[in-house]
Amino acid sequence: MIEEENGEDSRLAAISAAIRVVPHFPKPGIMFNDITPILLRPKLFKDAVEFFVDRYRDVEISAVAGIEARGFIFGPSIALAIGAKFIPLQKPKKFTGEVFSEAYELEYGNDCLEMQIEAVQPGERVLIFDDLVATGGTLCAAMKLIEQAGGEVVECACLVGSPKFKGRYPLNGKPVYALVECRR
Amino acid sequence: MIEEENGEDSRLAAISAAIRVVPHFPKPGIMFNDITPILLRPKLFKDAVEFFVDRYRDVEISAVAGIEARGFIFGPSIALAIGAKFIPLQKPKKFTGEVFSEAYELEYGNDCLEMQIEAVQPGERVLIFDDLVATGGTLCAAMKLIEQAGGEVVECACLVGSPKFKGRYPLNGKPVYALVECRR
Repeated sequence: MIEEENGEDSRLAAISAAIRVVPHFPKPGIMFNDITPILLRPKLFKDAVEFFVDRYRDVEISAVAGIEARGFIFGPSIALAIGAKFIPLQKPKKFTGEVFSEAYELEYGNDCLEMQIEAVQPGERVLIFDDLVATGGTLCAAMKLIEQAGGEVVECACLVGSPKFKGRYPLNGKPVYALVECRR
Repeated sequence: MIEEENGEDSRLAAISAAIRVVPHFPKPGIMFNDITPILLRPKLFKDAVEFFVDRYRDVEISAVAGIEARGFIFGPSIALAIGAKFIPLQKPKKFTGEVFSEAYELEYGNDCLEMQIEAVQPGERVLIFDDLVATGGTLCAAMKLIEQAGGEVVECACLVGSPKFKGRYPLNGKPVYALVECRR
């Protein structure tokens, strides 16, 4: 094994380098970090998922909640690998049956997330996943949905986070973990 | 091993039985097949993904394209397991950079799918995944996106399909495979 090519630092650097930085998207002033180039390179995509699986494999977690749409790309693979269920958190009107609902503010507008009421059992330990954390507004809404149902948020995990979320940073008293830092 | 409990037929029957049939959603006359109960039961979710992985493991496929949003729940796990990249097909305005675009009709309105132009290399062999196939309109749009980029559609795979798509049925000359039949 060539340590230089296969080490954790170099794999993280390769993931970070693949992120495409798009100025002024989706509105002026936002430096959007586009994670799609990672998905198009199977080795990077696999490495990214494995970092999360390694982190959570031995943690007591029975559910991974993913945020529509790009949180769905990583969350289910992590859930499958650790033997957890997958809870979709979606935009309004996507679910049949009764839902919990949380409105929230984005850097560029307002939005709303919903979760089926049967998705979380009281006391269940839940990992929340999204591709990106900027201000944390979406994650806060996701946390409220889990907690409304009586679940316990173990951590929020993101592929990319603004500098304050690099590593592990609390948001409303719960840890947020970002694998790599936003590029500017 | 107890054949009765672990056989392919009984695992398929368990997946089918977990689908929630919702009459008149999202509009009158539609019998919606809600696949979310499968995700909430880790064993069923894992079984469902493994059926697809077994089907495509030895097929020459270098990319799995998933349709937003629920096609993202299964597609990436299949891609990771067979060493393929994952191509997201999303609603308009989600991508940065240049895209191919395809408008299409649904049972209940119109919609549009986009794909980044760099997602597919000419000659690349692509599997398309969505959770559900009813009329095939969304899959046809997805096929056109892949073909515009010079890719070859190997098959379209869905968790649930209307009766004509149960098993393997051609749509615009390409095979569509549904794991289980829509419930009515």
